[in-house]
Amino acid sequence: MSEPLILVTNDDGVTSHGIAALREAAKDLGRVVVIAPETEKSAVGHAITLSNPIRIQELSKEDGVTGFAVGGTPADCVKLAVRALLDRTPDLILSGINHGANVGMSVMYSGTVSAATEGVILGIPSIAISLDSWTSDDFNFAGKIAKQFAVKVLENGLDEGVALNINVPSVPEDEVKGIMLTRQGQSFYEETFDRRTDPRKRTYYWMDGFLVQPDKDQDVDDVALAGNYVSVTPLHFNLTHNESLTNLASWKVFNNGNI
Amino acid sequence: MSEPLILVTNDDGVTSHGIAALREAAKDLGRVVVIAPETEKSAVGHAITLSNPIRIQELSKEDGVTGFAVGGTPADCVKLAVRALLDRTPDLILSGINHGANVGMSVMYSGTVSAATEGVILGIPSIAISLDSWTSDDFNFAGKIAKQFAVKVLENGLDEGVALNINVPSVPEDEVKGIMLTRQGQSFYEETFDRRTDPRKRTYYWMDGFLVQPDKDQDVDDVALAGNYVSVTPLHFNLTHNESLTNLASWKVFNNGNI
Repeated sequence: MSEPLILVTNDDGVTSHGIAALREAAKDLGRVVVIAPETEKSAVGHAITLSNPIRIQELSKEDGVTGFAVGGTPADCVKLAVRALLDRTPDLILSGINHGANVGMSVMYSGTVSAATEGVILGIPSIAISLDSWTSDDFNFAGKIAKQFAVKVLENGLDEGVALNINVPSVPEDEVKGIMLTRQGQSFYEETFDRRTDPRKRTYYWMDGFLVQPDKDQDVDDVALAGNYVSVTPLHFNLTHNESLTNLASWKVFNNGNI
Repeated sequence: MSEPLILVTNDDGVTSHGIAALREAAKDLGRVVVIAPETEKSAVGHAITLSNPIRIQELSKEDGVTGFAVGGTPADCVKLAVRALLDRTPDLILSGINHGANVGMSVMYSGTVSAATEGVILGIPSIAISLDSWTSDDFNFAGKIAKQFAVKVLENGLDEGVALNINVPSVPEDEVKGIMLTRQGQSFYEETFDRRTDPRKRTYYWMDGFLVQPDKDQDVDDVALAGNYVSVTPLHFNLTHNESLTNLASWKVFNNGNI
């Protein structure tokens, strides 16, 4: 195999400490190109930019790493990288290291995960990696985990249509219990909306919320993470609920309902 | 059952013709409240607004329908409606009628579908409905389908965690072949990026693309739609790829890898 081409992206923006840690983790594994949003794009989900032009800015080379800051979302970055900016299809996409866990229903809102999703849609093995802290800048252990799994994925690939969603506990390395293969859980934020009045007396709302964690099984993403395990979940993007296909057939409105 | 409360939303914005058709379809079924983005929010995926205030504007009553225009995404609209604006949890969420099909991988980018996803996360039966045309303003038949399924869902509910994704062909009603219960397919846009120079000589890109349709089976969303069937797909949002859980265990890095 020739030198692997590794695309590094994120949703916290190209200047974040997390992406620097990920670039560092990847740099001995192949040619690394960073193509990431110029500013923070958290909670953008799988948004793409169709109605506006997308601008790019070349980054100065650091440690031999080249790249671009993109005026768009994480999914835009991956599309633009693969379709327009890179000279060939990357062998691996690494997205992160995100500030804050992406487990349970948060996966649906995550720009970090959506970059990996986009990689999978384009047929590229992809890993999203997040640190379970909104404030800690210690990405050292998470970087080691990213490197370990990058090596594994470059060696073994992943099942077609599957991305890895990795979440790392934010505790001293010697308190980490191990690495757990997990399922996506049901945890979610129960939102509250703080109703306020601006200086011009107009009403506005801030979204806030608190985490609800209904899961109990050890091998569910947020439970593993809370137990100081690194959580590794294989995700795919065929959303069909097969059981409902059977249940809905009884509605008798479908031409194929009695097949 | 007391009069059902039906929340109508979309991603094309509160003034679109599609949402007017959906409001009309729903109005005999219960109390209808429209809470939708003030402007078009296509392809925003499941984005939510965390870093900015969200503003709302009360709509003038039309046909007894009340509502708000929201300065946010479709997912914001549903969260804000349920957590702050409505006096009780709605019995049904209808999202659409979208201009343009939401099938295959487009489901991942769709603001219309994300509103229904959000409903499911909040435990509310939800239907996304789209017309397979970016230009036609004839939402008449799609409105009938929306009403038919709204009635069915109010009567029967849906499996927990499941939303219906309905796509309606844009052909004269007598050319519609029937209603097909379908699976999410693999169709996707192969993006192209048009590289241009602005009047100030700076480079920018426009995202464009062409549709790739690898599916052949009759009961796949885009195949059914292309065959002039209404496509009805039950979607859920547990993205775990179960087969990979087995395959990845062989990597022997997991504490639960040999369970």
